[in-house]
Amino acid sequence: MKTFNDVFDKIREKKRKIALVGAEDLEGIKAVNEAVNAGIADALLIGDKRKVAANLKKLDIYGKFEIVHANSAVTASEAGVKLVSSGKADILMKGLVKTSILLKAVLNPDWGLRSGKLLSHLVVVEAKDYDRFIGITDGGMIIKPTLEQKVELIKNAVEFFHKMGNDNPKVACIAAVEVVNPDMPETVEAAQLATMWKRKQITGCVVDGPLGFDNALDPRAAKIKKVTGEVAGRADILLVPDIHSGNFIGKSMDYCAHYTIGGIVLGAKAPIVIVSRADEAKAKLASIALGALAVE
Amino acid sequence: MKTFNDVFDKIREKKRKIALVGAEDLEGIKAVNEAVNAGIADALLIGDKRKVAANLKKLDIYGKFEIVHANSAVTASEAGVKLVSSGKADILMKGLVKTSILLKAVLNPDWGLRSGKLLSHLVVVEAKDYDRFIGITDGGMIIKPTLEQKVELIKNAVEFFHKMGNDNPKVACIAAVEVVNPDMPETVEAAQLATMWKRKQITGCVVDGPLGFDNALDPRAAKIKKVTGEVAGRADILLVPDIHSGNFIGKSMDYCAHYTIGGIVLGAKAPIVIVSRADEAKAKLASIALGALAVE
Repeated sequence: MKTFNDVFDKIREKKRKIALVGAEDLEGIKAVNEAVNAGIADALLIGDKRKVAANLKKLDIYGKFEIVHANSAVTASEAGVKLVSSGKADILMKGLVKTSILLKAVLNPDWGLRSGKLLSHLVVVEAKDYDRFIGITDGGMIIKPTLEQKVELIKNAVEFFHKMGNDNPKVACIAAVEVVNPDMPETVEAAQLATMWKRKQITGCVVDGPLGFDNALDPRAAKIKKVTGEVAGRADILLVPDIHSGNFIGKSMDYCAHYTIGGIVLGAKAPIVIVSRADEAKAKLASIALGALAVE
Repeated sequence: MKTFNDVFDKIREKKRKIALVGAEDLEGIKAVNEAVNAGIADALLIGDKRKVAANLKKLDIYGKFEIVHANSAVTASEAGVKLVSSGKADILMKGLVKTSILLKAVLNPDWGLRSGKLLSHLVVVEAKDYDRFIGITDGGMIIKPTLEQKVELIKNAVEFFHKMGNDNPKVACIAAVEVVNPDMPETVEAAQLATMWKRKQITGCVVDGPLGFDNALDPRAAKIKKVTGEVAGRADILLVPDIHSGNFIGKSMDYCAHYTIGGIVLGAKAPIVIVSRADEAKAKLASIALGALAVE
């Protein structure tokens, strides 16, 4: 798969059901409705029945969706998680509830969606300049990952790329420079991750680092800087040092490069879709599509 | 000034002289020669006389430039710095010498170019989507700035924006989120910098933060996320948390958004131009132009 259209085609084969938690959110309903109209998902709306109904009437689609009543963010989150864990829905989607409340329900030890894996965020970019999907992790969830957490971030992202049909994605651990500099721990950990891959502590992918942003993505930059290896110039997944650097890349690829971008939370028993109010419609649709693709 | 053409027009009024240190570098000579051909600078070439001459002959421009002989990177750096400190050249430019060697000469207490200010890196982007120059600091010099260093980074960048004709640039201290989160020290320091500005500890600009990348640059994102203030949606300068995050933004704006980008080292008595081998010709020309504009 190289474009979101490829993803749409794949997920139409088996339509998945979204549980929109906090469906008092007009924008959330719009996004879900677009996905349904595009034929890529079905949906359940969870929230205050009267408010949700009012939203549906506003959009002239009252009666199109089943509403599950919940009178607070906490009860809506619990209801959404239980619908997914019981198999009545496949994808958990954040509407008008705080992320922290939704994730607390996800992590509930009794009825939550814990899988033992680290919950992590992956941005997937249809990078038209590079003719492939580029993954960026983690610009949305883990503030400053430890080395162990970086391994988990790679595993979650790689597993998702397998679902996109890329059996052996190339992971670049990127930093400001492509050399090991003891004053930049990020470059040291990048080298450690590359070695862990060599020793088969990380599998199902190719890992190299440290690489620069430019010589990870761009073959010409790799060639000029004489950075060799299987990943340089051909990276599929960028492992970033922290949430800020990852977030900036995603936002820059969205707001400046105008690439189509989706985001997804991985590592739970079911995919979690968290879109931003400022996302354009196509970004919200892309995120939902990633969610559908991530369903086991 | 909104474009590099505006910068070129301005610096043509008073042509500045580049001291290219390590002129054994064919690419460096090409860049300098382009600047001379564009009428925006003159140049002196410092390096091994025979090798430099061979390069000039290769480009069929032997005799066009004065060569100052130096038989090592250390002596070339010393010669270059002294030419600038004595007023025989205006801009120090790195050719085929290590950055560390060149900067050691710059910082020499006896004959260097120390000014007492922090040496910092500023990327200046002609951001066609935003109809203005965007500055990014520091993605090239200071690995992980302290709060005090962030104040210096802002001062250096603001002083440069004044030279670009922007009397009161808007500085956004950006992070992954636009709220103060104690688990993200970057957001706490961003708020501290905004307060320091309110108390007039930072002047000549407007400072706000924390802001996200999107709501700093884009008025629509600021409006949707209800982020208000003088800077949101209209930032001229992005102060980034560290060298990695700043480097990634610059590279992404170059390799993905295809904005024209230049970089410059500020804080010494004279501007220092350090271009990358992987930079395109227009990026090298832009960096030289920034250097010429920065001359006092």
